Amino acid sequence: MPGNILKVDCFLNHCLDVEFLMGVGREISELFKDRHISKILTIETSGIPIAFAAGHYMNVPVVFAKKKKTGNIADNFYHTQVASYTHGNTYDVIVSKEFINGDDSILLIDDFLAKGNALKGLIDIISQAGATLAGCAIAIEKGFQGGGDELRNMGIRVESLAIIEEMSDNTLRFR
Amino acid sequence: MPGNILKVDCFLNHCLDVEFLMGVGREISELFKDRHISKILTIETSGIPIAFAAGHYMNVPVVFAKKKKTGNIADNFYHTQVASYTHGNTYDVIVSKEFINGDDSILLIDDFLAKGNALKGLIDIISQAGATLAGCAIAIEKGFQGGGDELRNMGIRVESLAIIEEMSDNTLRFR
Repeated sequence: MPGNILKVDCFLNHCLDVEFLMGVGREISELFKDRHISKILTIETSGIPIAFAAGHYMNVPVVFAKKKKTGNIADNFYHTQVASYTHGNTYDVIVSKEFINGDDSILLIDDFLAKGNALKGLIDIISQAGATLAGCAIAIEKGFQGGGDELRNMGIRVESLAIIEEMSDNTLRFR
Repeated sequence: MPGNILKVDCFLNHCLDVEFLMGVGREISELFKDRHISKILTIETSGIPIAFAAGHYMNVPVVFAKKKKTGNIADNFYHTQVASYTHGNTYDVIVSKEFINGDDSILLIDDFLAKGNALKGLIDIISQAGATLAGCAIAIEKGFQGGGDELRNMGIRVESLAIIEEMSDNTLRFR
């Protein structure tokens, strides 16, 4: 669609194709099965189904970070700020300190990776918690927006099940 | 906690106990297995994991209604308004017309049922679509807030896996 928008609401973020998303979760669990993951961290809303499916196959809990508009943040939360490319604003992201700590080895999961701003926010939260970042698993990466390669160049393992190299109003080219 | 707030973020709406929630979904699928459900409808955010788990066992797609702050709503969406007891405001709820139609037999799923305002909004959307309401499945009903019995008195099948009859700062009594 115009403006580099990829319409995925028919299976990923409004109507959920449950068996397809379970398959995405199973594939992610295979990719990271040797990494001793203790928890999955994602961000509401559309990362939740894939993270939940992966959590099922990996047998680990899923924590989802919450988006918050404004206002005070209680000090039992880690928090960071994320710039939204889609909405042109900045929002707060919070995770209760109860659910991530220095013993955790964390797999980040999200549905989309474009500029990587949401992932960088979650990486900041993992760092605040003193936890280990085991890697990032993504359903669809917009490779041409550079966020994935920026993270890979920082030494982070980023696994995207599909990487779109180029998109126009009526074609997609995959890496 | 004070103010009739039940803290469930350790398994239901911040950190997800995936196997427990898969069990909730399996139980819901058993309760409605003879009802020829074609789709599950829930509302973001915390209804999604249970609805996803039930969708897996029932082998049907899950549609999640989106909450919207303000602004114009395109006419390819059903929309309704819901009053929030927890937040003391009103918000718009939308579902794309693409995903629900008159042929659907729909199971509503949500994590909580208190006054029933969110469910009534989703029932309004089902009615706009001309779809059939097969029933409602809920993880935790606050029975003392009356929403569940109000819906049952309207002839709607409401199945709650736990109904809290009374709660104080340190005790829960189940129905």
